[in-house]
Amino acid sequence: MKEKVTVIKVGGKIVEESGSLASLLDCFVHIEGRRVLIHGGGRSATRVAEKLGIESRMVDGRRITDKETLEVVTMVYGGLVNKNIVAQLQARGINALGLTGADCNIIKAHKRPIAVVDYGFVGDVEHADGVMLSALIEQGIVPVVAPLTHDGCGNLLNTNADTIAAETAKALASHYEVTLVYCFEHPGVMRDPKDAGSLIPVITRDSYRAMLAGGIVTGGMIPKIDNAFSAIENGVAEVVITCADAVGEMQGTHIIA
Amino acid sequence: MKEKVTVIKVGGKIVEESGSLASLLDCFVHIEGRRVLIHGGGRSATRVAEKLGIESRMVDGRRITDKETLEVVTMVYGGLVNKNIVAQLQARGINALGLTGADCNIIKAHKRPIAVVDYGFVGDVEHADGVMLSALIEQGIVPVVAPLTHDGCGNLLNTNADTIAAETAKALASHYEVTLVYCFEHPGVMRDPKDAGSLIPVITRDSYRAMLAGGIVTGGMIPKIDNAFSAIENGVAEVVITCADAVGEMQGTHIIA
Repeated sequence: MKEKVTVIKVGGKIVEESGSLASLLDCFVHIEGRRVLIHGGGRSATRVAEKLGIESRMVDGRRITDKETLEVVTMVYGGLVNKNIVAQLQARGINALGLTGADCNIIKAHKRPIAVVDYGFVGDVEHADGVMLSALIEQGIVPVVAPLTHDGCGNLLNTNADTIAAETAKALASHYEVTLVYCFEHPGVMRDPKDAGSLIPVITRDSYRAMLAGGIVTGGMIPKIDNAFSAIENGVAEVVITCADAVGEMQGTHIIA
Repeated sequence: MKEKVTVIKVGGKIVEESGSLASLLDCFVHIEGRRVLIHGGGRSATRVAEKLGIESRMVDGRRITDKETLEVVTMVYGGLVNKNIVAQLQARGINALGLTGADCNIIKAHKRPIAVVDYGFVGDVEHADGVMLSALIEQGIVPVVAPLTHDGCGNLLNTNADTIAAETAKALASHYEVTLVYCFEHPGVMRDPKDAGSLIPVITRDSYRAMLAGGIVTGGMIPKIDNAFSAIENGVAEVVITCADAVGEMQGTHIIA
């Protein structure tokens, strides 16, 4: 039987406030078995860009990444957010290692082709290296992955953290029994975000189609659920969308193949 | 016989300009055997701090690091400079891994006690983990170390890159035959920086004492040479101070125990 790995993706809002980050990391410590943490950092990137006089332009929730903005996200995701999480995990006795996709070549991507929108230095993932990640994990290291990849030609690329989480989980699936947990501010996917009782406990491909048609899921939830299906349909054992407080409890919305 | 490792420290000026960085990395590729790269980044930190409206205050060439400045150096050293070097080494076929002292707990430090000057969040190194670094190096990984450490209590600390290079070299000395190369803009330690013929090929403890008394070495050269002696007197096989173009050629100033 394969050993277990839990891949947890946490959104910017949780990791960028010291209180919620501390709570999350306290929960993270208690998750049994091997672990990987993937983080965002968009709010900090926007804040630092603003201070530097760089305008943040978003299309469908995705950041247009020109050269200046790439410098900002490299500083914020790869430096500020990532290294603070690493230092705080070390303080909790977890041997964390901060990574971008360029480090140990763990996630290679290519610059997104220009279609309707030119996203600039944004990466579409080509390959996540499950062998290298497993080798690190087997040394007792807990990878902490920032939403940056590289193209193998010296360029870093801004890459969606939900996608990085799914690709990392899939790459680890041939080595481990992988659970992928998407953590955000809600208890899971909700019919009505204002009604706690409207949590959808399970989403299948059929129910997802109906939800899309009925307009129940919209905006940023769509790529998140698409990533979740990509993971569960490619070897990942379990995928859950839940809130940070429930990490490790496996409540929330389960995505079923 | 122990295997060889070359630990190279490059100053900010070299790694912060794309032309000189590219030349350095082209030389770095041709160094035989295991390698570690330690970098600075002070000029970029000053530039980013200035854009953010944060004043850079230096005492004896060392940066006073308040909370805001710590954020800047975390972004610049741990993110911008480090990850760009990593991506560019990957483009040259070198499996680089960017690290701060917090990553894998490789360099632990404590906040410098307040004496005459309160340097703020500046770290004095307590321990560099040669076992962990060796384990990474044995996997074919090339560590690229930013001048940041941590205190084990969740705080990152700004730490002199020359010191990090010496401590890393010393920690590796029980596992490898270590050569430590300090790279900067001059061909080595000079009697007169304007006279290329005034290179001092060898410095011993005795000649260093005479040079200090004669005012031949001053300013930032003193801690650099002190770090060099600390390395050569603690198991490092060879220590050289030279310019980036000569990396791998072992010209420059040799520090002899």
